[in-house]
Amino acid sequence: MFTHLDENNRGQMVDVSAKGITKRVAIATGKIHLKKETIDAIKQIKTKKGDVLAIAQVAAIEGAKRTPSIIPMAHPILLTSIHVNFYFEGEYLHCECEVSCEGKTGVEMEALTACSAGLLTVYDMCKSMDRSMTIEEIYLLKKTGGKSGEYIRERK
Amino acid sequence: MFTHLDENNRGQMVDVSAKGITKRVAIATGKIHLKKETIDAIKQIKTKKGDVLAIAQVAAIEGAKRTPSIIPMAHPILLTSIHVNFYFEGEYLHCECEVSCEGKTGVEMEALTACSAGLLTVYDMCKSMDRSMTIEEIYLLKKTGGKSGEYIRERK
Amino acid sequence: MFTHLDENNRGQMVDVSAKGITKRVAIATGKIHLKKETIDAIKQIKTKKGDVLAIAQVAAIEGAKRTPSIIPMAHPILLTSIHVNFYFEGEYLHCECEVSCEGKTGVEMEALTACSAGLLTVYDMCKSMDRSMTIEEIYLLKKTGGKSGEYIRERK
Amino acid sequence: MFTHLDENNRGQMVDVSAKGITKRVAIATGKIHLKKETIDAIKQIKTKKGDVLAIAQVAAIEGAKRTPSIIPMAHPILLTSIHVNFYFEGEYLHCECEVSCEGKTGVEMEALTACSAGLLTVYDMCKSMDRSMTIEEIYLLKKTGGKSGEYIRERK
Amino acid sequence: MFTHLDENNRGQMVDVSAKGITKRVAIATGKIHLKKETIDAIKQIKTKKGDVLAIAQVAAIEGAKRTPSIIPMAHPILLTSIHVNFYFEGEYLHCECEVSCEGKTGVEMEALTACSAGLLTVYDMCKSMDRSMTIEEIYLLKKTGGKSGEYIRERK
Amino acid sequence: MFTHLDENNRGQMVDVSAKGITKRVAIATGKIHLKKETIDAIKQIKTKKGDVLAIAQVAAIEGAKRTPSIIPMAHPILLTSIHVNFYFEGEYLHCECEVSCEGKTGVEMEALTACSAGLLTVYDMCKSMDRSMTIEEIYLLKKTGGKSGEYIRERK
Repeated sequence: MFTHLDENNRGQMVDVSAKGITKRVAIATGKIHLKKETIDAIKQIKTKKGDVLAIAQVAAIEGAKRTPSIIPMAHPILLTSIHVNFYFEGEYLHCECEVSCEGKTGVEMEALTACSAGLLTVYDMCKSMDRSMTIEEIYLLKKTGGKSGEYIRERK
Repeated sequence: MFTHLDENNRGQMVDVSAKGITKRVAIATGKIHLKKETIDAIKQIKTKKGDVLAIAQVAAIEGAKRTPSIIPMAHPILLTSIHVNFYFEGEYLHCECEVSCEGKTGVEMEALTACSAGLLTVYDMCKSMDRSMTIEEIYLLKKTGGKSGEYIRERK
Repeated sequence: MFTHLDENNRGQMVDVSAKGITKRVAIATGKIHLKKETIDAIKQIKTKKGDVLAIAQVAAIEGAKRTPSIIPMAHPILLTSIHVNFYFEGEYLHCECEVSCEGKTGVEMEALTACSAGLLTVYDMCKSMDRSMTIEEIYLLKKTGGKSGEYIRERK
Repeated sequence: MFTHLDENNRGQMVDVSAKGITKRVAIATGKIHLKKETIDAIKQIKTKKGDVLAIAQVAAIEGAKRTPSIIPMAHPILLTSIHVNFYFEGEYLHCECEVSCEGKTGVEMEALTACSAGLLTVYDMCKSMDRSMTIEEIYLLKKTGGKSGEYIRERK
Repeated sequence: MFTHLDENNRGQMVDVSAKGITKRVAIATGKIHLKKETIDAIKQIKTKKGDVLAIAQVAAIEGAKRTPSIIPMAHPILLTSIHVNFYFEGEYLHCECEVSCEGKTGVEMEALTACSAGLLTVYDMCKSMDRSMTIEEIYLLKKTGGKSGEYIRERK
Repeated sequence: MFTHLDENNRGQMVDVSAKGITKRVAIATGKIHLKKETIDAIKQIKTKKGDVLAIAQVAAIEGAKRTPSIIPMAHPILLTSIHVNFYFEGEYLHCECEVSCEGKTGVEMEALTACSAGLLTVYDMCKSMDRSMTIEEIYLLKKTGGKSGEYIRERK
């Protein structure tokens, strides 16, 4: 049932040897609730030169690459692309990450970890202004490739 | 305003040299929405021998320790304790992390990163059963120590 | 003779470009000598809920994944599975690790490193009770795949 | 009893906040059993220019530094020195590591991990000649500093 | 003579236990030679929104933090600040990094490693336009604190 | 133009999914300027037993393997070989690194990062004798494989 637990219910890294190498893509999303003044500050700085989001973007990309060391049972994977997109909507800053590989195992953990790292970095960059930020609704939007096939979830 | 940006609005690791060494504690929380059958499966396995949460707990602790490599502008810190607590409430599995240090800079990013790593690992362990899990409401509950003093937030 | 040394006898990471991609499996084993009361404590805790071995198991799996950063001349490898098994026998707790990949180079270092990390973690978890534990007899039990073919060693 | 397990018997990183900062030293030892021809090869290369042991020595030092990422519940520590010594005795190559810090927690895991990493690297460097090497008797020789005071174990 | 080599001339991490904790600062510099069109492209992108240098800046900061894992004999250090500055001068893009800590050992390797990581990242970001870039003249500009006292070098 | 920047000019890890898997090799070079007495010291130690360069060599190899964590937009790659060569010429110690893989993306960043890590380590090992060393002229000598084909640069 839990593919990550062996017959003694202890952790294992599940065997993917027999799986085929296919192109796999996963898209995850998440958001952080910010005060209006924090949103303005991020935007303004951005129109000047600085860029909170440039740093968060790097963190998201590195988060995707570092997934096998953050998630104990995750397989090492040769990622072939990572795209990160931040956008504002109302009181939220959204982070959407698309990760792909050609391999024997999917990249949804990479996409989810990228979103988390990106949003945590936004928190870190803004916490001197406001500590009441909340990270919300991190979930898988879409995944293709692999034996379990396509998964698509409607945006909340 | 953004203490992590220098006068060119580029990232820097802010100078904490002049800050005093004080005991600092931070508590963060977060939760993941699960199907009833996933909750049952986690609980049942747990009453046997296996333990999804034991693995997620390790991931949370390691996430706290690894924070300076996940969050670009975070300072390296000598953490003195990390406590992680998972509990179920309705359709949610909660993860609460308390981190402390004696140092020149706080540990709220460590607590938030620990929660994120713990919840992402729960997702990873359960994703073969359900891909519609959502990680929700990761935020700082409390922080003490340091110049900015105590911060307490009511539980949502 | 030493394939890891170049003509100046300095370290190199040997060229495996020309090697074929085959399924490779390695099994390594090791054990730690414990006092009877430490064994009892590990077992009892386990029958309750806690689980020293669950944590050591995670450490072993992560040790396998982290091998190329622990062993200077080891190649990065895409591991396809890691299984860890702890069992008690007399005054010993054994740790046996099976690692597999499909690649150009074998995974025996991964299996041996996994055993070492698992046993070191048992030591760490139990050292407040006893400091006289000894880690013993870490060796390769079996290896298949690759040009050098199968290697099987009798259990000591 | 197990200081690394909380009241639910799950892993925690134990609180060392209240501990004093003292100078702490730990010495660990371990050995690897080698065929006579492997010992000769290591020695000969060494008398030329190359040096299997130089590489294993680096691995041991890096292993000590990397301990908090290899051992899940280990605290980050500011190590102040690491000395590694390899010597031959009969059919064995010994690795002895002395690690020190000034901190709130001891360095015995660092010394033990250093020995393990050093010996695993010797295995890696020599495995093209012989796969029947065995790593044996890794244990703590001595530890000073800290509340639990001095621990000395006779050499086996 | 070589403080990093023990009496057998093998690597060690030198003992800094007896050193005092003082504020230590180091400034390093380096530059990369670029074609005029590459300089223009970096500048233009920057005046729009994108920012090659924002990414290189993150890499430099992370390089400073990661120094003990890149430089085998470097001590782990609690850095208290990292400032990175990129500026253009003729056919060169300069990278200057100031790192500080309060500790028992200096931070010049951290400053030099930060410069190297920053300039390598500029190379990586621009290599699709030009592969003939050259990284030049990475050296220590200034260092204060510690037993060896102040070191100041004239800018080349 | 900058393949590492998306349409908002923020960082991305470029998509290499469609690229073919070919054998790719890159050779990079760099050098460090040393005082005559430092060169003599390195050489003499080497003729005894110790070996500054053995340690720098390990650092270079590990630098190549660690490239995707040092260079933010670099892809993870399965390196198949790393060769490092140090040689003296006049007032300089040169470091030349050849890295190869079979993959979808090239290894020039790996070769350049290896040179940088090797030369920084030489600096670290010798800095107690002299702080006026300068790292100079790190550049790509040659690269083969991949869509952009062969690149050869004359030695400066």
